[in-house]
Amino acid sequence: MGAGLYGANKCFRHVTERVSTDGCGAEDLVVFHHQTSFTRLFAHLTCSVLSGAGDDFLSMAECQYIIKHQLEALRAEDETHVPGYSQAKLYPGKSIIRRLQSKGILVQMFPLHDKEELKRLSFSWYRTVRLSLQPLDAIRRYFGEGQALYFGFLEYFTIALLPMAVLGVPYYLFDWENYDKYVLFAVFNLVWCTVLLEVWKRYSATLAYCWGTLSRKKAFEEPRPGFHGVLGLNPVTGRKEPVFPSVSRQLRIYLVSLPFVLLCLYLSLYVMMIYFQLEGWALSVYDEDPTLWTEVLTYIPSIVYAVVIEAVNLLYRYAAEFLTEWENHRRESSYQNHLVLKVLVFNFFNCFASLFYIAFVMQDMLLLRQSLATLLITSQVLNQLMEAFLPYWLQRRRNKKMIRKVLRRRAIEEKELPLAEQVRLEADMNTYLGTFDDYLELFLLFGYVSLFSCIYPLAAVLVVLNNITEVYSDAFKMCKLFKRPFADPAGSIGVWQLAFETISVIAVVTNCALIGMSPQVKAYFPESATQLILWTVAVEHLLLGFKFILAFLIPDVPKHIRVKLAQIEFESLEALKKKVNHLLVVFKNGDCVSFWT
Amino acid sequence: MGAGLYGANKCFRHVTERVSTDGCGAEDLVVFHHQTSFTRLFAHLTCSVLSGAGDDFLSMAECQYIIKHQLEALRAEDETHVPGYSQAKLYPGKSIIRRLQSKGILVQMFPLHDKEELKRLSFSWYRTVRLSLQPLDAIRRYFGEGQALYFGFLEYFTIALLPMAVLGVPYYLFDWENYDKYVLFAVFNLVWCTVLLEVWKRYSATLAYCWGTLSRKKAFEEPRPGFHGVLGLNPVTGRKEPVFPSVSRQLRIYLVSLPFVLLCLYLSLYVMMIYFQLEGWALSVYDEDPTLWTEVLTYIPSIVYAVVIEAVNLLYRYAAEFLTEWENHRRESSYQNHLVLKVLVFNFFNCFASLFYIAFVMQDMLLLRQSLATLLITSQVLNQLMEAFLPYWLQRRRNKKMIRKVLRRRAIEEKELPLAEQVRLEADMNTYLGTFDDYLELFLLFGYVSLFSCIYPLAAVLVVLNNITEVYSDAFKMCKLFKRPFADPAGSIGVWQLAFETISVIAVVTNCALIGMSPQVKAYFPESATQLILWTVAVEHLLLGFKFILAFLIPDVPKHIRVKLAQIEFESLEALKKKVNHLLVVFKNGDCVSFWT
Repeated sequence: MGAGLYGANKCFRHVTERVSTDGCGAEDLVVFHHQTSFTRLFAHLTCSVLSGAGDDFLSMAECQYIIKHQLEALRAEDETHVPGYSQAKLYPGKSIIRRLQSKGILVQMFPLHDKEELKRLSFSWYRTVRLSLQPLDAIRRYFGEGQALYFGFLEYFTIALLPMAVLGVPYYLFDWENYDKYVLFAVFNLVWCTVLLEVWKRYSATLAYCWGTLSRKKAFEEPRPGFHGVLGLNPVTGRKEPVFPSVSRQLRIYLVSLPFVLLCLYLSLYVMMIYFQLEGWALSVYDEDPTLWTEVLTYIPSIVYAVVIEAVNLLYRYAAEFLTEWENHRRESSYQNHLVLKVLVFNFFNCFASLFYIAFVMQDMLLLRQSLATLLITSQVLNQLMEAFLPYWLQRRRNKKMIRKVLRRRAIEEKELPLAEQVRLEADMNTYLGTFDDYLELFLLFGYVSLFSCIYPLAAVLVVLNNITEVYSDAFKMCKLFKRPFADPAGSIGVWQLAFETISVIAVVTNCALIGMSPQVKAYFPESATQLILWTVAVEHLLLGFKFILAFLIPDVPKHIRVKLAQIEFESLEALKKKVNHLLVVFKNGDCVSFWT
Repeated sequence: MGAGLYGANKCFRHVTERVSTDGCGAEDLVVFHHQTSFTRLFAHLTCSVLSGAGDDFLSMAECQYIIKHQLEALRAEDETHVPGYSQAKLYPGKSIIRRLQSKGILVQMFPLHDKEELKRLSFSWYRTVRLSLQPLDAIRRYFGEGQALYFGFLEYFTIALLPMAVLGVPYYLFDWENYDKYVLFAVFNLVWCTVLLEVWKRYSATLAYCWGTLSRKKAFEEPRPGFHGVLGLNPVTGRKEPVFPSVSRQLRIYLVSLPFVLLCLYLSLYVMMIYFQLEGWALSVYDEDPTLWTEVLTYIPSIVYAVVIEAVNLLYRYAAEFLTEWENHRRESSYQNHLVLKVLVFNFFNCFASLFYIAFVMQDMLLLRQSLATLLITSQVLNQLMEAFLPYWLQRRRNKKMIRKVLRRRAIEEKELPLAEQVRLEADMNTYLGTFDDYLELFLLFGYVSLFSCIYPLAAVLVVLNNITEVYSDAFKMCKLFKRPFADPAGSIGVWQLAFETISVIAVVTNCALIGMSPQVKAYFPESATQLILWTVAVEHLLLGFKFILAFLIPDVPKHIRVKLAQIEFESLEALKKKVNHLLVVFKNGDCVSFWT
């Protein structure tokens, strides 16, 4: 195996030992690809010390998380570099695995799928079409809390949309031409999107409580793998680690990233204006010569615009990732927040700017309805293609190749373990990049529905349909197309809760403005536009105030959970008191009165 | 002393023993008034076990807090009632002191002033007029963190007002007649009140960190003394205690308290309308016959209104206290929050409704300026009278009486201790009811300044002057007029932060509206009022959005404090790991690899 693998190998044996000593109840696997010699080392970490305590003591996801944590906590003691790799420098306290990863010695590290469990999970999840909820607990056991919360939110959102969808269909069928009678629907929207998020917060807290992640304390975060800087002292831990001055980061954020985002927003506005010119031109062509072909032509700008939006979003995404990487955030969570913020603002602007322009500058409700429909349908079709069918097709091609390879090798040497084969197969699968894109999609759909569905009541129906296929395609994707991701023990949907709440505030403003612009309401103020605007603004402010009061009054955690949390807190306090007593007895030789009653 | 005092006496001896065993570094005192026989029992708790660890180990306020906690944690074991008081029922787990208090057996419980310390504190605080900041640390040592934070906020608010006051004077002197040139001032206000509160949050966190209360965990709260209900089981502690169904409380809040508050608001509106009629009448009289007397008459409605407002506020305060008591909140904090909310909404409405009416319905800026001046000056004069001079005068009368009594008694029997005399004197002093009224006053002043000071730039000057006298009168009041209050270990100004932030949001809306109404801005939109309103609303929404983003971006805790907190967290985690190791070593007989590096 050569001296080259000594470092990795040594630390690896270390890991194997430790994990098997301390134990958990699952099988896990780490793959080292040794680049220089293309030697591969597969190590199978089996640990079942705790299996005596019942299989349910730790979920598979939790075992994974523990093993990953242990691997990442392996630190160099006095080595100056990975043995055999003089370019892979180490210093006391540096995580060995992270250095192996950043130098490309360790190419991949991932947990293996458990075929038995996966089969069971996929049958109860997506392989039978049933009228029941998703098996969230089983998803959580297999993939961890972060995944389970995403699927929980997707399901909750879909169910919450049902009343709107049910209302929308007759509205659409019978009132299609009276597109100005949307006041009722707007009021409904307004209430709906506020209540929706408040109830979700409580439901999410209930889920997280059952999964034990609700009052989870964040562990001290290590620097993320891409973080670089001069070697210095971390003020918190007192350990040596790369240090990057926060002022430089702030400068990069405010002097480069912010202007770049603003420039992109401006360009996106520019593209939008071109779209409106094309739209105008197509309509004028149709007006001059109304044939079938010219009618089709009127739809083309919208479709082209939807495609362009998707493409630009994708390009921007790469730029945002590059910039956020360059901002050199120390912690993974801060990197994620900055990336989410960048991508979210641009996506929101890109998707909704044209709709806002049509609604409030052009004030053309018919065009708004048409644009909304085109945008919604095109982006959904594109999304489903990009998300499920394309990876599926790529995967199938790759699998076939792989199986051919495996068969060829089998012909040569028969002795390889089936496990090694599985590792080879899964190592070539795509890596799941987290729930980011899935949430982003939901975020935009939530925006379409809460902002403009009063103009196009079928939006809710389309979103419900999309969500149902989304559940199946996401589940399929998770189980079949991707490497099993590392579990992420989350207690809430985190920054996305904030993002959805921001949308719901914008929805109040938008819906009030739409109501104020509706001919029905205008009829009440025949003589004075000023009066109408002042009333609209006053009502909007009252509603916003009411919304904040409501958010403040409704407790984020349901009462029975709060009681249970208080109980735990109380019991731990009592236990602490007993311990204090015990210590007093020890130190005072029994002279201590029972101080805490 | 008779059998009547047995219960109290027994538990009291208990307390004395315990406190002197466990110790702290201060002197404290509890007064039992035995109502039936008017026997008084003074017990002097001296505890100095920890005094060897240096006098600064615990502040006086902390010692007090510990003693109070110990007293309140005394629980009945198997007694069914206080011995000798068959009407004072007890059950296992019931706090004895609370039952003694609720049955009136224990009439007062308060810490004594420390004359030496008080003298030192008062000299460095208010008895010498100096150009320096208040000795917040000394205040905190003597009165506790809650008091110190109040005085810190008062000082901070005064200093933050200085730039506005400095700007205001020349503005007032040179632009008095051009009262419509207030746009700049309004913009300044807008920024000021947002920045003010953000910076305060950071300053308050720094103070609380130095005092050790920043990341203080709330202890489990006992039912407040006035709470009553059927005896049941507390779901959290499993102890027997009175239980009151939360549904009944909600019903009381939403079916009685809420309608009552709304009715009061309506009445307050009604009184306001009468004021405006009187005002109109006085002006018409002045117009008919402009003499000195009729000019004085024009000021009378404002003065009468200001007095009525103060009186109604006082009456309402009693009603609010009664209602909140009747709502039967279990926890003191929830009682306080409901009381603060009720009083705050009404006070805000009562003080500002007329100003809003003048500003936005009558649109008479001259009248607004005049009303603001009258309201501000009258309420300040009244406040200073009610707060400092009246209690001072009453106290002096009482003290004289007391001293006469003491002298008379001395003539009879010479043997009473000076401590007992001090207790008698202080027992008759007024009880300090917490920082509620002080914060309320600051809240209203903050409202005047942030909402309307652009119309009357002298407001800031008046408020600064008021605050300076307020520091002195409050300090005097705390040290001389009131019984020493129990310390309250607070980590922030709590619910008041929220109240001030609400005002600052309202200030953004109000200032934007005032800007939009100013003739200067109106001149930009000569042809269309609609355009003007739309622009104003758009700018206001942008500013509100910007304000929320700013509040989100500025961390609530300064960086160096965050680093220190993270350090503590990290060290405690490391210590825990070591402990785990230690346990492993113990249980595995040295077989344990060093798992945590």
